[in-house]
Amino acid sequence: MRVLGIDPGSRVTGFGVVGAAGGVVTVIASGTVASPANAGFAARLRAVHEGIRAVIARHEPDEAAIEDAFLGKNVKTVAQISQVRGVLLLALEMAGLPVTEYSPREVKLAVSGNGNASKEQVERMVARLLALPARSGSLDESDALAVALCHAYRAARRGTPAGARA
Amino acid sequence: MRVLGIDPGSRVTGFGVVGAAGGVVTVIASGTVASPANAGFAARLRAVHEGIRAVIARHEPDEAAIEDAFLGKNVKTVAQISQVRGVLLLALEMAGLPVTEYSPREVKLAVSGNGNASKEQVERMVARLLALPARSGSLDESDALAVALCHAYRAARRGTPAGARA
Repeated sequence: MRVLGIDPGSRVTGFGVVGAAGGVVTVIASGTVASPANAGFAARLRAVHEGIRAVIARHEPDEAAIEDAFLGKNVKTVAQISQVRGVLLLALEMAGLPVTEYSPREVKLAVSGNGNASKEQVERMVARLLALPARSGSLDESDALAVALCHAYRAARRGTPAGARA
Repeated sequence: MRVLGIDPGSRVTGFGVVGAAGGVVTVIASGTVASPANAGFAARLRAVHEGIRAVIARHEPDEAAIEDAFLGKNVKTVAQISQVRGVLLLALEMAGLPVTEYSPREVKLAVSGNGNASKEQVERMVARLLALPARSGSLDESDALAVALCHAYRAARRGTPAGARA
């Protein structure tokens, strides 16, 4: 099973694709979806939408997981991230990918055993669990890999094949 | 000049297309973009995105105006509306339409002369200004027409042709 994890951001969106087979999870790809620096907001939305569609076309995930991070953010930030989230969900829907949403707490708990883990702790655990060199990418990238890992572990625990949903 | 006005909602999105020529503004089309009632959220986002693209293809507006209504709403509502707003802005961007955003206050002021007008007052004024029968559509529809009217009046006051932006 291949899982695409996404960490939506108002400026930078991280993605991570992991493969899970026989209890072993490995990284297939990870990175960030860039927006044209000086473009208007609608043009940035389009860049994010098309960027994630390109990732899907290239890496052909079976399922997707996305972080649901609204808590403790101000209304303006929530509005911006949510618009980005909308065009990401649209891309996943167009590709026919089942999507599961996870709170930051669920993701932290899944990868570090602590729902209140720091970003740095999550980053270290993602690197350890996926046998990556430390500090190999951006925090957005490791957050997206954490979301993908969280989903892969949940799916393994449920013993469900790709495509099955909670 | 044809203006597409949009009132994004978490459940129902209203649209209105008006034509402005020689100081006269008339309705070309208006309605709501429906989502499948029992579909998941991503499927509803797709229905809204494709619905507004169909409206654009059919009525060929030159410019678009969208309401920017976050004030006084709770974070969950803002998150939902913003995701819808994201897929709407994406559709406008894909169609190459310049988009202007207006606050509810600006829209109310433009159509009723009162920035604090009630929804009903706005509805009555939209019907009067566009010579529509009273209570001819939903409030979402008349809100979208109000946004389109607001933009048409602004453009007329600037004396700018279609495509020019502030």
